[in-house]
Amino acid sequence: MSLVRVQNFSISLDGYGTGAGQSADAHFGHAGDRLHQWMFATRYWAAGGSGGVDDAFVRRFDDGIGAEIMGAGKFGHPGWHEDPDWKGAWGPNPPFHTPVFVLTHHPRESIEMEGGTTFHFLDAPPAEALATARQAAGDRDIRLGGGPTMIRDFLAAGLVDHLHVVVVPIVLGRGVRLWDGLEGVEKDYRVEATSSPSAVTHLTFTR
Amino acid sequence: MSLVRVQNFSISLDGYGTGAGQSADAHFGHAGDRLHQWMFATRYWAAGGSGGVDDAFVRRFDDGIGAEIMGAGKFGHPGWHEDPDWKGAWGPNPPFHTPVFVLTHHPRESIEMEGGTTFHFLDAPPAEALATARQAAGDRDIRLGGGPTMIRDFLAAGLVDHLHVVVVPIVLGRGVRLWDGLEGVEKDYRVEATSSPSAVTHLTFTR
Repeated sequence: MSLVRVQNFSISLDGYGTGAGQSADAHFGHAGDRLHQWMFATRYWAAGGSGGVDDAFVRRFDDGIGAEIMGAGKFGHPGWHEDPDWKGAWGPNPPFHTPVFVLTHHPRESIEMEGGTTFHFLDAPPAEALATARQAAGDRDIRLGGGPTMIRDFLAAGLVDHLHVVVVPIVLGRGVRLWDGLEGVEKDYRVEATSSPSAVTHLTFTR
Repeated sequence: MSLVRVQNFSISLDGYGTGAGQSADAHFGHAGDRLHQWMFATRYWAAGGSGGVDDAFVRRFDDGIGAEIMGAGKFGHPGWHEDPDWKGAWGPNPPFHTPVFVLTHHPRESIEMEGGTTFHFLDAPPAEALATARQAAGDRDIRLGGGPTMIRDFLAAGLVDHLHVVVVPIVLGRGVRLWDGLEGVEKDYRVEATSSPSAVTHLTFTR
């Protein structure tokens, strides 16, 4: 059976997966790009980047993935559903190249983009959204794309098979936390920690 | 000049330095001993333990230390100040072997223990307590012993030179958090992360 995976989900030391004050100009709020600089420094992202452990992890992003599920807050800044022309923040050829299921209380018609990405919109709880995504993914895995709220909801529902979290050594102080309400979540997993020379730590939860 | 150091301060993935529900029988509340099992597995702690990276870090506990400052919540469970015979939870020969300054709103007479530990009681803000501890420590360093609230207060006051935090891969969900109110604290430090085969990650903040 295919797995439900979270890849490269970055959080601060105090557990925030996004900062406060998200807007069209600040997709991660006051965090800016600080949660993702480790990723931009990899060879996967840019020529001349590092080919070390960060690069090895980041390449699992699309390896064997047949569909993504993302939260409304990842698809756009607050209020995007009032803009009928909003197609996400990734330009005409988004980096997903599979069906992407956007969880929203404001569903709309599917949007076919270049490069194999099609955005579908679902008003559904985690298990139901997952069943739909599984059908689209065939025997490939499902990636949970974030943000923190949707990953937390899927973890609380026991639906996550592989969780890769990247702890970045900054204290954000404000935003949306990943771990809230998940007391004891580690009990169902084998947990590994791998620190990188970039100072981030890769945590993997597998079952 | 001597340094102000935090050594072996363990927190959960969600940042809790102690659990909820502290009592005489549960010094760390519902966390039990889960935040410190990595330490008990070292050779420093018990014969036959591991001599790896956890052991190397844990031995810095008393290396070059001339005094400790601890919070009231470390000296005893809530209400200890109403017990005139309370001398801490470490028996007649506590593991400090230096002067220890307990921050409390209920100061009492100093208590001389076996093995070189003397408990002094101070009702003082961080900078003032530190000045007193420095006099006792001579040219040796001052250890901040915790709990999370006092370490947070000293960090907020800019008084910490070396912070060693051990991130344990459990989600506690409840208790007292270390990082609250410390947005951007990393900016004044060089931060390193070192993961251990035991699955904990050692974070060092040095300046």
